[in-house]
Amino acid sequence: MAGDRLVVGLVQMSMRPDPGENLARALDLIAKAHAAGATMVCLPELFSFRYFCQSEDAANFELAEPVPGPATQALEEVAAKLDVAVIGGVFELGAHGNYHNTAVFFDGRRGYLGKYRKMHIPDDPVFGYREKYYFTSGDLDIRPFRSSRGACGVMLCWDQWFPEAARLAALKGAQILIYPTAIGWHPDDSPEVRARQSEAWELMQRSHGIANGCFVIAVNRVGFEPAPGGSGGIGFWGGSFASAPDGRVLARASAESDEVLIAEFDLAAVERCRVEWPFLRDRRVDAYAGLQERYLADDENASGG
Amino acid sequence: MAGDRLVVGLVQMSMRPDPGENLARALDLIAKAHAAGATMVCLPELFSFRYFCQSEDAANFELAEPVPGPATQALEEVAAKLDVAVIGGVFELGAHGNYHNTAVFFDGRRGYLGKYRKMHIPDDPVFGYREKYYFTSGDLDIRPFRSSRGACGVMLCWDQWFPEAARLAALKGAQILIYPTAIGWHPDDSPEVRARQSEAWELMQRSHGIANGCFVIAVNRVGFEPAPGGSGGIGFWGGSFASAPDGRVLARASAESDEVLIAEFDLAAVERCRVEWPFLRDRRVDAYAGLQERYLADDENASGG
Repeated sequence: MAGDRLVVGLVQMSMRPDPGENLARALDLIAKAHAAGATMVCLPELFSFRYFCQSEDAANFELAEPVPGPATQALEEVAAKLDVAVIGGVFELGAHGNYHNTAVFFDGRRGYLGKYRKMHIPDDPVFGYREKYYFTSGDLDIRPFRSSRGACGVMLCWDQWFPEAARLAALKGAQILIYPTAIGWHPDDSPEVRARQSEAWELMQRSHGIANGCFVIAVNRVGFEPAPGGSGGIGFWGGSFASAPDGRVLARASAESDEVLIAEFDLAAVERCRVEWPFLRDRRVDAYAGLQERYLADDENASGG
Repeated sequence: MAGDRLVVGLVQMSMRPDPGENLARALDLIAKAHAAGATMVCLPELFSFRYFCQSEDAANFELAEPVPGPATQALEEVAAKLDVAVIGGVFELGAHGNYHNTAVFFDGRRGYLGKYRKMHIPDDPVFGYREKYYFTSGDLDIRPFRSSRGACGVMLCWDQWFPEAARLAALKGAQILIYPTAIGWHPDDSPEVRARQSEAWELMQRSHGIANGCFVIAVNRVGFEPAPGGSGGIGFWGGSFASAPDGRVLARASAESDEVLIAEFDLAAVERCRVEWPFLRDRRVDAYAGLQERYLADDENASGG
């Protein structure tokens, strides 16, 4: 079953102030992952920038570029040259005043498969994730890219906390759930709070893999980025990982270092796991209408009798 | 904020062949939990029986009783006498040939709040969970019991693998997700497989707590129960636990022993956690229609462009 074997590369990197330097480093790290045997490589969310969403600054909109644009063309070229699938995140200049937090998928020599626009957008002034100012909510739905490496449901960062997103990807055939990410600690967080937050983050994503019988890839950035013009900042916690459909962590990167993490998947495990744990068989789709609501009124005594 | 403090008791017990003996022991253990300070006590799924679903045997339907019936009346009496909330699971003789795997909720002196019929029903001939033979799928929806101890979303065992169930409970106001359970290992499972399975089980339920900002209670049985008339059986893995809205495990029982596990909740943490991690604010309810489908056709190139 060599056809089911997939070697993935997770590029955990720290970002410098200069976008051009970050792009050049990302291309080098893709080549390094390829040299280590990876045929699919994933970069962190918004990999060519310091995480500019720490502040709300209109000047940052100048960082956006269309798709295709210079950054995505550079990814397309390296993907084709090495015949390696590449997933990267860009700040997309969309149509008519809409800007998006977007991931693009290049399937090696097969080229561009499409893009995904982040569906769930955070806004957190305390910890410095002010994304609702920059990004229009995604409008392309959640749908796997049918690559030559497998069916890949690509989501982005805050999406990772939503079981609905992972489920929709799986219902459309995803075998692998991919989460390019930018998440970290506040400098004032205690060691206990840090451990709790990064553990919850990993746990949630592993749970999506288990609930759906999918492999999971999460790729985070690393390093401290000071808040613009002020105190504070974000210490990105790394911890990029890959997990199996049964929830096992297959590989995990450190919290501190730039790293090309390699993991090997046997994609046949997806169907094997879904036979052993047939959750998709037993969903009560007749009872799920309420999931389309923001909240549900409760008829207090309706479950009596 | 003493009004937000809740002490819960999780009764992890092994089951004997005689249902009357199991009921008497359960009543004793409820009293023990009460004596330890608990004002709400949860029993395992189908607590008065050995797990009869290891085989498909028509004679087992004689074990069913209506609600109310002798077992639930005994729970109602102890709940009223001690003024302690009690959640217990029964094999319910329903209407017109329908039998259910059912949980009942007694709110101390306030009495019966209602019942819940297991929505997601497993069938696993290899590991011995042949529930589709016995139980009609639940028809009462998932809805929290508005008890004097808090809003409690009670689900049962296999439900614990479905993010949809937990989400529906939370959208209807649940602060606590409660999972009475009967789950264990096959005698042939290796130590590695055992660890992986019970870890996945705990991880999934903690993930529901995080995704919804809820406390979680999972109460499992313990001990080995041989398969009727044959080789094999199930070694129920215990591991009953309670977790906080941020996913932290607050208390965890052993894998081997009968135990009354006590945990303390500060229910104000539910709202605090939902402000810090506002997942319920950011759900994309406009994009979730597909969750009502068994699977979704994928327009292969629709995300391109």
